Amino acid sequence: MNNFTFQSATKIIFGRDTEQQVGAEVKKHANRILLHYGGGSIKKSGLYDRVTVSLKENGVEFIELAGVQPNPRVSLVRKGIQLCRDNNIPFILAVGGGSVIDSAKAIAAGVPYDGDVWDFYSGKSQVVNTPLPVGVVLTLPAAGSEASSSSVLTNEDGWYKKGMGSELIRPEFAIMNPELTYTLPAYQTACGAADIMAHIMERYFTNTQDVDFTDRLCEATLKTIIENIPIAIQNPEDYAARAQVMWAGTIAHNDLLGTGREEDWASHGIEHELSAIYDVAHGAGLAVIFPAWMKYVYRNNIPRFAQFAVRVWNIEYDFENPERTALQGIEKLKGFFASIGLPVTIQQLGVEDDRLEEMADKCTDGDKKTLGSFVKLGKKDIFEIYKLACE
Amino acid sequence: MNNFTFQSATKIIFGRDTEQQVGAEVKKHANRILLHYGGGSIKKSGLYDRVTVSLKENGVEFIELAGVQPNPRVSLVRKGIQLCRDNNIPFILAVGGGSVIDSAKAIAAGVPYDGDVWDFYSGKSQVVNTPLPVGVVLTLPAAGSEASSSSVLTNEDGWYKKGMGSELIRPEFAIMNPELTYTLPAYQTACGAADIMAHIMERYFTNTQDVDFTDRLCEATLKTIIENIPIAIQNPEDYAARAQVMWAGTIAHNDLLGTGREEDWASHGIEHELSAIYDVAHGAGLAVIFPAWMKYVYRNNIPRFAQFAVRVWNIEYDFENPERTALQGIEKLKGFFASIGLPVTIQQLGVEDDRLEEMADKCTDGDKKTLGSFVKLGKKDIFEIYKLACE
Repeated sequence: MNNFTFQSATKIIFGRDTEQQVGAEVKKHANRILLHYGGGSIKKSGLYDRVTVSLKENGVEFIELAGVQPNPRVSLVRKGIQLCRDNNIPFILAVGGGSVIDSAKAIAAGVPYDGDVWDFYSGKSQVVNTPLPVGVVLTLPAAGSEASSSSVLTNEDGWYKKGMGSELIRPEFAIMNPELTYTLPAYQTACGAADIMAHIMERYFTNTQDVDFTDRLCEATLKTIIENIPIAIQNPEDYAARAQVMWAGTIAHNDLLGTGREEDWASHGIEHELSAIYDVAHGAGLAVIFPAWMKYVYRNNIPRFAQFAVRVWNIEYDFENPERTALQGIEKLKGFFASIGLPVTIQQLGVEDDRLEEMADKCTDGDKKTLGSFVKLGKKDIFEIYKLACE
Repeated sequence: MNNFTFQSATKIIFGRDTEQQVGAEVKKHANRILLHYGGGSIKKSGLYDRVTVSLKENGVEFIELAGVQPNPRVSLVRKGIQLCRDNNIPFILAVGGGSVIDSAKAIAAGVPYDGDVWDFYSGKSQVVNTPLPVGVVLTLPAAGSEASSSSVLTNEDGWYKKGMGSELIRPEFAIMNPELTYTLPAYQTACGAADIMAHIMERYFTNTQDVDFTDRLCEATLKTIIENIPIAIQNPEDYAARAQVMWAGTIAHNDLLGTGREEDWASHGIEHELSAIYDVAHGAGLAVIFPAWMKYVYRNNIPRFAQFAVRVWNIEYDFENPERTALQGIEKLKGFFASIGLPVTIQQLGVEDDRLEEMADKCTDGDKKTLGSFVKLGKKDIFEIYKLACE
C-alpha cells in the first residue's frame, strides 16, 4: 500500500426533491452566478424551472450559458470565461451531467488565468490557481465529475480530448436526486454504467501490493452497478436502483477507491482518441476498449484478474488453471456490457477501422510517451489493443 | 433509501513517516496551539519528540495538556478549555487515539461556549458554535474519531458517559502512520477491532430498504477487519495488515457507510453504561454487548441477519431455515471476538452482574427514553440484553 493524501470535501445533498435546496445552497457562496447547462432536456423535464425558481426565491441573480455538448468543447469554455469576466461572476452552477460539470470546471479554472484555458489540458500549465467555486445539480450518473478533481475537454482544433486534474476544482456541493435520472434513455443509462465501472477498474487493476481494503471497496461498488443497472434499464423509474447507481457513481470517482494504489488510466486515454475523432459516447467507447485492454494485459497479473472474476462475477476459481478464471472474468464483463445494449467492438460503435494507427499515434504523442501503469503501453501496444477491439 | 447530506472533509495524510508533516500541516491553520495527549506512551515511542520537533521547525508554539485517560473525563476538558482561553489558543492538536481526540473535540467546542461543556453531552445544549479547529496524529485505530463528527466523554460526577455530535467538530486533518500502531498490545488491537466493527454494524443493522450500495460497503469494511486483525495480532509489525485496519477504521465511522440509512446505536448506548461504571475498555464492552443485542433483536429482521452471515462470514444460506443462518452469523461474530482474545460475557469482562438493572435504568433515563431504531428498546429490553450478555 502506498502513502496517500485524500480529501474529498464536496458536500453531497442526496435524495428526492433535493434540487429545491439549490438556491439556499448557492446563496451560501454567492449572489450572482453563471448558470451553465446543455440543451433542452432540463427545460423539457421542468428541472430548469425548478432550479431558477429556487435561485430567484433566494435572491440569487444568474447569467446563463447553455449549449454544452457531450464531449464538451473548449470554444464554449472560452466563451464562458469571457462571460464571467465581463460580468464579474464569482460562482458557477452546473446543471447536467459530466460534460456540463467538466465545462464548468474549465471555466472556473480559466477565469483567473492569464493564458488560454487549454494550457491546463495540453500540459502547458500544471497549476490551477484560485478557480471559481462550482456547484452541481447532477442529472446523469456516469462521469463522477460531481465530486472529482478532474475535467476532460475536447479541442476542436485537431480534435484533441484531454483531461486535467486539480484538488481545487472539486465542486463545493453536488445535489443528487435520483428521480432526475428517470428520463434517461436505456442506452445513456448503460453508457453511464460503463463509465462508472471503468473508473473503478482503472483503479482496481494495479500492481500495488497489500490493498485489501480498497480492493473490497472497488468490488462492492462494481457489484452495486452490475446488480442495479439492469433493473434501472428494465424499469427506468425504479427509485432504489437509480439511487444505488447514482451514489455508487460518485464514490467510484471521488478518489476514495484509489487511495494507496497506483492507478492505470490507459483505457481512458485509448478511448479518448476514439471519442475525440468520432464523437462517440465516452461510455460506449469504454465498453469497447476496456475488455480489449484486459485481453492485452491480463497475463501481467493473472491473480488479480482471477480475483476480479471470482469476487466481482462470482466465478468459481479454477485452481488448476487460474488463467481460465481470469479470462472468464473478462468475458463476463464483455457479456455484461453487451447485455445492457452497449457495443463491444469498434465496428458496433459505427466507427471505421482505418484510422487505428493514427489514433495510437495521437494517444502517445507520436510514440513519445506511454500510457498506463499496470502495463506501460507504447504506440504499438495501443495499436494492438485497437485491433483486439475490432474482433 | 433515505435522503441524506454527507460531507466528510477531513484531510487524510496516510502512510509511513507522515507524522513528519505535522508541523507544516498545523502551520496552515495556526502558529500557537494546544498539544493534547495521554500519558507516557507517545514519549516512550519517540512520537512526542518527532511531533514537537516538526512543530518547532515550522515555528509553531505549543502549550501542552497531557493526561487524557481512556474514557476521557470532563474534568480534564474543563482544564483544557481554561488553558486555551487564558493563552488565546486558536487550534488543538490531538496526538493519540479516540480518547485524546474526543477530549480535544470537547475542548474545541467548549472554548467559545458560555455555559459548561457538559451541556453538549447532557443534551442541555444542542448547538456547537465556532469550535476551535482540531488536527490529529492518530496512534490507535478504533474510535474513528479522527474523521468523525462525534465525541464521547465521561462525567465523573455520577459516572455518566455520553456522546455528542456536530459537523463542526470533524478534525481538519488526520495524520495516520500505520507504523505508529506496531507497539499496540494484542488486547488493545483486538478492542480496536471490536470498536471498528461495531461502528459498521450499528449502521448495517437497519430496517431502511434499498440500501444495496452501503450494505456492500459495510460488508467490504467488515471483511477487511476480519481478515487483517488476526494478522496484525500475530505479527504486530505487519505494515500491510496494520494499514488496512487503520484506513478501514476511519471509513467505518466517517459517516459514508451510514448514508441513506437509519442507524441504530443501541449497543453503544448499552455498552457506555458498562464502561462508565466499571471503566472497562469500550471495545471489550462492545464485544460482550453486540452479540447479546443481536440475539435479542434478530427475529425482527431475519433476512438482514442472514445476509450478514452469508456475505460477511461466508456461511452457506440455509434455504429451508434462514433463521439458522442468521444465528450462525451471530455465533461466528462471537467466535471471532473470542478468537482474538476478547471477552464475550460480562463475567469475562471482570464485572459483577449485580448492577444490571441500575445500568438499564441509567441507559434509559429511568425508562423515560428508548434506545436504538432497528428495534426500539426500553429499560426491560436492555435488562434482558445485559442478562443475555452474562451467558
